[in-house]
Amino acid sequence: MTEFLELLTPDDAKKKIFESLNEIAFEKNIIFTKEALGYVFAKPIISPESIPSFERSTVDGYAVKSRDTYGASESLPAFLRVTGEIIMGKEAEISIDTGEAALIHTGGMLPQGADSVVMIEFTDKAAEGEISIYRPVGINENVVKMGEDVKNGDLVFEEGKKIRPGDIGGLMALGITQIEVYKKPIIGIISTGDEVINPEHKIKLGQVRDINSYTLKALVEKIGAIPKIYGIVSDNREKLEKVLKQAHQETDMLIVTAGSSASTRDLTSEVVQTLGKPGVLVHGINVRPGKPTILAVCDQKPVVGLPGNPVSAFVIANLFVTPIIYKLMGITNQVGIDTKPAVTTLNISSVSGREDWVPVKLVGKNELNQILVEPIFYKSNLIFSIIKADGLIKIPEHLNGIPADSEVELFLL
Amino acid sequence: MTEFLELLTPDDAKKKIFESLNEIAFEKNIIFTKEALGYVFAKPIISPESIPSFERSTVDGYAVKSRDTYGASESLPAFLRVTGEIIMGKEAEISIDTGEAALIHTGGMLPQGADSVVMIEFTDKAAEGEISIYRPVGINENVVKMGEDVKNGDLVFEEGKKIRPGDIGGLMALGITQIEVYKKPIIGIISTGDEVINPEHKIKLGQVRDINSYTLKALVEKIGAIPKIYGIVSDNREKLEKVLKQAHQETDMLIVTAGSSASTRDLTSEVVQTLGKPGVLVHGINVRPGKPTILAVCDQKPVVGLPGNPVSAFVIANLFVTPIIYKLMGITNQVGIDTKPAVTTLNISSVSGREDWVPVKLVGKNELNQILVEPIFYKSNLIFSIIKADGLIKIPEHLNGIPADSEVELFLL
Repeated sequence: MTEFLELLTPDDAKKKIFESLNEIAFEKNIIFTKEALGYVFAKPIISPESIPSFERSTVDGYAVKSRDTYGASESLPAFLRVTGEIIMGKEAEISIDTGEAALIHTGGMLPQGADSVVMIEFTDKAAEGEISIYRPVGINENVVKMGEDVKNGDLVFEEGKKIRPGDIGGLMALGITQIEVYKKPIIGIISTGDEVINPEHKIKLGQVRDINSYTLKALVEKIGAIPKIYGIVSDNREKLEKVLKQAHQETDMLIVTAGSSASTRDLTSEVVQTLGKPGVLVHGINVRPGKPTILAVCDQKPVVGLPGNPVSAFVIANLFVTPIIYKLMGITNQVGIDTKPAVTTLNISSVSGREDWVPVKLVGKNELNQILVEPIFYKSNLIFSIIKADGLIKIPEHLNGIPADSEVELFLL
Repeated sequence: MTEFLELLTPDDAKKKIFESLNEIAFEKNIIFTKEALGYVFAKPIISPESIPSFERSTVDGYAVKSRDTYGASESLPAFLRVTGEIIMGKEAEISIDTGEAALIHTGGMLPQGADSVVMIEFTDKAAEGEISIYRPVGINENVVKMGEDVKNGDLVFEEGKKIRPGDIGGLMALGITQIEVYKKPIIGIISTGDEVINPEHKIKLGQVRDINSYTLKALVEKIGAIPKIYGIVSDNREKLEKVLKQAHQETDMLIVTAGSSASTRDLTSEVVQTLGKPGVLVHGINVRPGKPTILAVCDQKPVVGLPGNPVSAFVIANLFVTPIIYKLMGITNQVGIDTKPAVTTLNISSVSGREDWVPVKLVGKNELNQILVEPIFYKSNLIFSIIKADGLIKIPEHLNGIPADSEVELFLL
């Protein structure tokens, strides 16, 4: 009697949108390595040099020829003449001959002629300018060889990898102080609904404050993309077309929270369809919450229509929008959603034939050190049910519930 | 024969520094809620109103008196007169009397006299201005009551909670557009060592580029605090004192990477001791890598001396510095480090009597859907051993290794 949604399973819906996303070309940018946290390598990085660039000591001690220490022991130490000290940060000027040793610090450059370092703990000062050695060392002992860390020409980072703190250190170690990365996508955010008002304003009966714009803005920031809020549009075709067209031109992706009633959802879908080819790919997903989700690609830019209900909008944003944004960021090593194993404490019922995402609280650990989660039973539209939640768990389509003490995958919010 | 470090276990070291941190008073700040992602509530938030502020429909349908629908069925529908439509965003002007119904949209305000909503799917248009209803509804069915989400006076957020995207939505729902948060701490970062040079400069034999300043800067950013790089200081007491004193005044916490040799580590410790009371609390931790770590609190500000070796510095920064910074941020609900369960694929040996942290790569999942990790065997000082790693696993002090197929806790980098 009303709208007919051809519901796809969540997996099919994801597949459909990701196929269309493969054709999108990403813009690139050269930035300073020290500012690169959270960006994504736009091309592979090949090491321009070897690290270390010289043989280094890994301990404080004496650089020696290892054969001079063979057979050394507490009762029969080897005696070597100390010819000097290796100065940190300088090329070693000393060279070691048979019977000689040089004081060296951790990270110091091994002098010519030496092939190993005796730890200072196994030496003692003997006569003036002489040390006694109580343990033998092997060739290369306590030494890092030239290029042992990285060799000139090694592939050190792959294209599509999101840059972590340690990676920035690795680039700096190689003297790579600028890199080519993918530009961070700009994600346009539009709220719709005649009842929705700016949270700054005083609320009247029948009105609700805009939640979705700000939840989505923060989620986009958390993921590492750039949010752009376009505000609230009333349920009016011309106004919606105008704002969506402008936002579609100015951004790399659009998220529209599309009123809660069937009529406003249909309006959103129709307007999205005018933004470009191929248009709406998915209209309705067999998932709760979030059934009336719209997934579209218009002129190489994804457009997602989320239900206006803040609970549905938030859950779908985490589960569907996040992987789409990762894809737009150029990330190839992280397209799914990140979960942890957990164990349920109560029975949770569900409707078979539909994937359910249930908000849960962490309630401690069991004797096996597994995370315990307790479901939050909620009614559609109760915002704080999701705010009280630490995460979400999935009840697959083919089940009509999950008994207590079941292992589940926990998606942390 | 050289330095004597009184080694504490990692847990004892953490306990010692955290006890001293409890006395620190954190500065507060009022910010816009929409910019609050990653900040921490500096006081509890009590709801100033009830949500919803009016009775709302959760579906598209007709607002009715439930008793008018009792006994309705496909074969014997109830007939009701439609007296109007509830306009979104407005106070409902209609009131429902016995035998009447009003068209209502999802989120619309329930009119006076109605106590429930019949879903549109279970209705049909009958004669002009009339509908037939095929299913009964109970009192409050498809309705969210006033205050069902949150009640005026409810505690909605606790002090010390880190603000997530959904929390920002919850604050907006309540019209709370500004909040009091803890100021983000400024973390000063200082590298030392005569051999260390700025990565922009050309490297000479015996020199290495500064890695630690940039790895630590990015880690501090990732955690959500504010890094401030002070550059490289040579191994010279006066220079080190001057920079440390200035940095200690300008920041909320200091991280000094303290040369690799015993003499430069001792120098750092001595200079840290001059910064204020109580001074150095821990000098040496029974952990690998990272044994020569210094933990101090000077005049209510933590000072951490990390080993100059980039691998040690990075591991200790993740395991020790991160929880200290969380503490300084005022976060009370996340003081430990975050791990996931995983299973080892190879035997990993270790020295009993010392906690070991071993870099590992993710190599897939087993048939039980458990994450599989493979150790990266590394020598001290090889930076890329840690960059190739996806995470770290702990081998506890009392073990001399972990056999293949063991369950371990994985700390993701």
